[in-house]
Amino acid sequence: MAEKIDEKKVTPRSQDFAAWYNDIILRAELADYSPVRGCMVFRPDGFAIWEALRDELDRRLKATGARNAYFPILIPQSFLQKETEHVEGFAPELAVVTHGGGKELEEPLVVRPTSETIINHMFAQWIRSHRDLPMMLNQWCNVVRWEMRTRLFLRTSEFLWQEGHTAHATREEAEEETLKILEVYRTFVEDFLAIPLVVGRKSAAERFPGAVETYAIEGMMGDGRALQCGTSHFLGQNFAKPFETRYLDENNQLQYVWQTSWGVSTRLLGAIIMAHGDDQGLRIPPTVAATQVVVVPIWRKVDEGDKVLAAARTALEALERAGIRVRLDAREGLTPGFKFNDWEMRGVAIRIEIGPRDVAAGEAVLARRDMKGPEAKSKASLASIAENAKSLLDEIQRSLYAQAKAARDATTREPADYAALREQMAGEGGAGFAIAYWCGNPACETKIREETKASCRAIPLNQKIAPGKCIVCGESADERAYFAKAY
Amino acid sequence: MAEKIDEKKVTPRSQDFAAWYNDIILRAELADYSPVRGCMVFRPDGFAIWEALRDELDRRLKATGARNAYFPILIPQSFLQKETEHVEGFAPELAVVTHGGGKELEEPLVVRPTSETIINHMFAQWIRSHRDLPMMLNQWCNVVRWEMRTRLFLRTSEFLWQEGHTAHATREEAEEETLKILEVYRTFVEDFLAIPLVVGRKSAAERFPGAVETYAIEGMMGDGRALQCGTSHFLGQNFAKPFETRYLDENNQLQYVWQTSWGVSTRLLGAIIMAHGDDQGLRIPPTVAATQVVVVPIWRKVDEGDKVLAAARTALEALERAGIRVRLDAREGLTPGFKFNDWEMRGVAIRIEIGPRDVAAGEAVLARRDMKGPEAKSKASLASIAENAKSLLDEIQRSLYAQAKAARDATTREPADYAALREQMAGEGGAGFAIAYWCGNPACETKIREETKASCRAIPLNQKIAPGKCIVCGESADERAYFAKAY
Repeated sequence: MAEKIDEKKVTPRSQDFAAWYNDIILRAELADYSPVRGCMVFRPDGFAIWEALRDELDRRLKATGARNAYFPILIPQSFLQKETEHVEGFAPELAVVTHGGGKELEEPLVVRPTSETIINHMFAQWIRSHRDLPMMLNQWCNVVRWEMRTRLFLRTSEFLWQEGHTAHATREEAEEETLKILEVYRTFVEDFLAIPLVVGRKSAAERFPGAVETYAIEGMMGDGRALQCGTSHFLGQNFAKPFETRYLDENNQLQYVWQTSWGVSTRLLGAIIMAHGDDQGLRIPPTVAATQVVVVPIWRKVDEGDKVLAAARTALEALERAGIRVRLDAREGLTPGFKFNDWEMRGVAIRIEIGPRDVAAGEAVLARRDMKGPEAKSKASLASIAENAKSLLDEIQRSLYAQAKAARDATTREPADYAALREQMAGEGGAGFAIAYWCGNPACETKIREETKASCRAIPLNQKIAPGKCIVCGESADERAYFAKAY
Repeated sequence: MAEKIDEKKVTPRSQDFAAWYNDIILRAELADYSPVRGCMVFRPDGFAIWEALRDELDRRLKATGARNAYFPILIPQSFLQKETEHVEGFAPELAVVTHGGGKELEEPLVVRPTSETIINHMFAQWIRSHRDLPMMLNQWCNVVRWEMRTRLFLRTSEFLWQEGHTAHATREEAEEETLKILEVYRTFVEDFLAIPLVVGRKSAAERFPGAVETYAIEGMMGDGRALQCGTSHFLGQNFAKPFETRYLDENNQLQYVWQTSWGVSTRLLGAIIMAHGDDQGLRIPPTVAATQVVVVPIWRKVDEGDKVLAAARTALEALERAGIRVRLDAREGLTPGFKFNDWEMRGVAIRIEIGPRDVAAGEAVLARRDMKGPEAKSKASLASIAENAKSLLDEIQRSLYAQAKAARDATTREPADYAALREQMAGEGGAGFAIAYWCGNPACETKIREETKASCRAIPLNQKIAPGKCIVCGESADERAYFAKAY
């Protein structure tokens, strides 16, 4: 293990963000490239983050009344063609199974890029009466969307996600569900992943193919680019009509259902890395970290080793009893400095150092990953190490959020005019969010995208502001929108 | 909901086992057929069983040191061809992606039927030194094996499973791992799913394509047919050699790793249904049940309703606080008898009935699903309802195991000669296990399979028995084997 770690050098984040991103993923063994074009491999340290994230979000989604189910990965090609915009949006990205069991299939099957179509086919059979509504299902699964330009976690041909699909008796109820899930996503990503968000609806150009309205949560990454972290769609009756998903209302009249769909994916791992990481490597929020605390025993003389190791093991057990995910790094032949760098790279929130003098004093040093220099270190009594670590983990979770928010706020601008917007977005890299009045005309949005490479990320909900002038055309505008260069 | 339930009639198990099996799955809403040939849909009540089962097995597998990872679903076709037996075994069952992103692919990709090949490709990059071993990974995922004759849960083109893959420095360590996981599977299925098992190694004919040795756990279903419930394979160096999965040993010599792979699938849901179900429907072991207890309030006069409902809600809360998965059935317009049948069909372990006289007496009736007639009912004080239900759930778990074991033992025979074996296996249906000496000659096994339709299910390990004579050829035989007609 040691040799391999030594071999890999990590590009500093400040020097080349994209290279840094790939380097730390490989170096911290979160993931790897696969021999299949566009597909990636999730290694245990990366997958453990996904598991922690998934379990918590699953709990929150179930609390809204959604239940988990599972639908086939293979979908008849004809199903996708039933909704015009849907097939236009997904056709270029499909992986198609043409042969099965040694024979050419009569009808090709697509590997699901999303499951609105096959789920509507089933909903149409399960939903008969208003008493069957609302029907709220979710599935955790893999999807495939053929990608030519891929990036680990952010854009891969296969990715893992959850997709929720609901059917309701009324438009109002479906719209309410769309926004309720958006709020579940917002609180989950802000609280649990420590990533501050901008929330709002998407412009027509950025809408999910087949949706009436798409809402999104958008995070700001360390390089000034925005990342869409989750979407919630109000589908209206766009799928209900072609699939004949209908119910008998209380007056015995057949009505089409109103629907929603919503999802977050393994892209969130990319968000965690890019929102929190620094030149030293990952900084994983304690809530989702596979390892929250590492104990590093330090000694030189052989006769000191036993006492130090015994104290480290006692600390380890106390931390484990307190429910903290902790590891002891008793690897031999590696210097403390090497180990410190290694665990910093892997983003472990707290490093506990225990040396001979600490043992004598009944103390240990706690070094927090979210800070640098002498302030990052504090001493704690070995007797109360678990309580100390526990409250420090909470503090680090809050601190990572605060740091990410400060970084985002520092780059968020309100350009006075179009020239200022162009200036903000000039250059190769990202440039933070620009908040500006937009009249809603797609032509103005297109002009911004073509001339500044920034896209409309979100139009905040319930804006209580006076009308202004569109930053592009100067016409009257009721709303402001967030623009940014994005992943 | 009520209308739909009424429409579906269930074939008695005793009349037609296969029809009964499909009927109760559809009627209890565990699953449904899909529009895609051979694929099924897991509905929430079925998927919840899978989730409970998965979470518990995941915990047990992680306790052995295995960690979860995720590998691509698409595998280059050439990878499968690297191991001769492997490709011969799986070629007839492959689903093949020939087009991606609107273009024909240079090399077709197969949808994974199992992942030994792609995982070995990655292992070969990750494993360099003996310090990287053992490497023990597991993944929960979907796999596709094209099936022409499908049956819900038991045999579907797509299914969900976990597949563990490990690499070790020595043959002994890999063999030990193979048997360790076999034991994890055995205790899990016996304790958690309440299904008694026969455990042993497979004959060469029943081996996993590419394995040196395959071990299995085999359950006996209610119709006298055996069901393979999980397998653990010792792969030797069969994959390590073509994929060049090697490590530097302590003497700096390159050595091939020794490997294992092992899996259980959603087929286990079929095992639960077929091992425990009866004419009235499902009987789900409390450990894996989405609903363990249902509370049914019963009243006629309007003025009694409030008191009964209040008592039912108090009981519900007490049960919830005790960590019991409980539901209140306060549906209106349905008779108690209808509700009783409905929950019996769905296999809920305990039904708690509360009527006006019960409320007055501070009592409730507990009816257990694992028994019939007056013995199935007992009274409990409302004040101690949670403790009563909790201990009754434990008792029901044990009772379901005992009943399944008694049923299996009652049909297990030790035929004195080949004629007796033929007689046991005669007829259309299953006939339980036959234990018989077998010389190990594949010709004798083939004769049994062709003439009786029974196959060799398992050869128990460490048989401490005197040699006997092969039931087919009469030659000397050191071991006895279990034969049965199987799914």
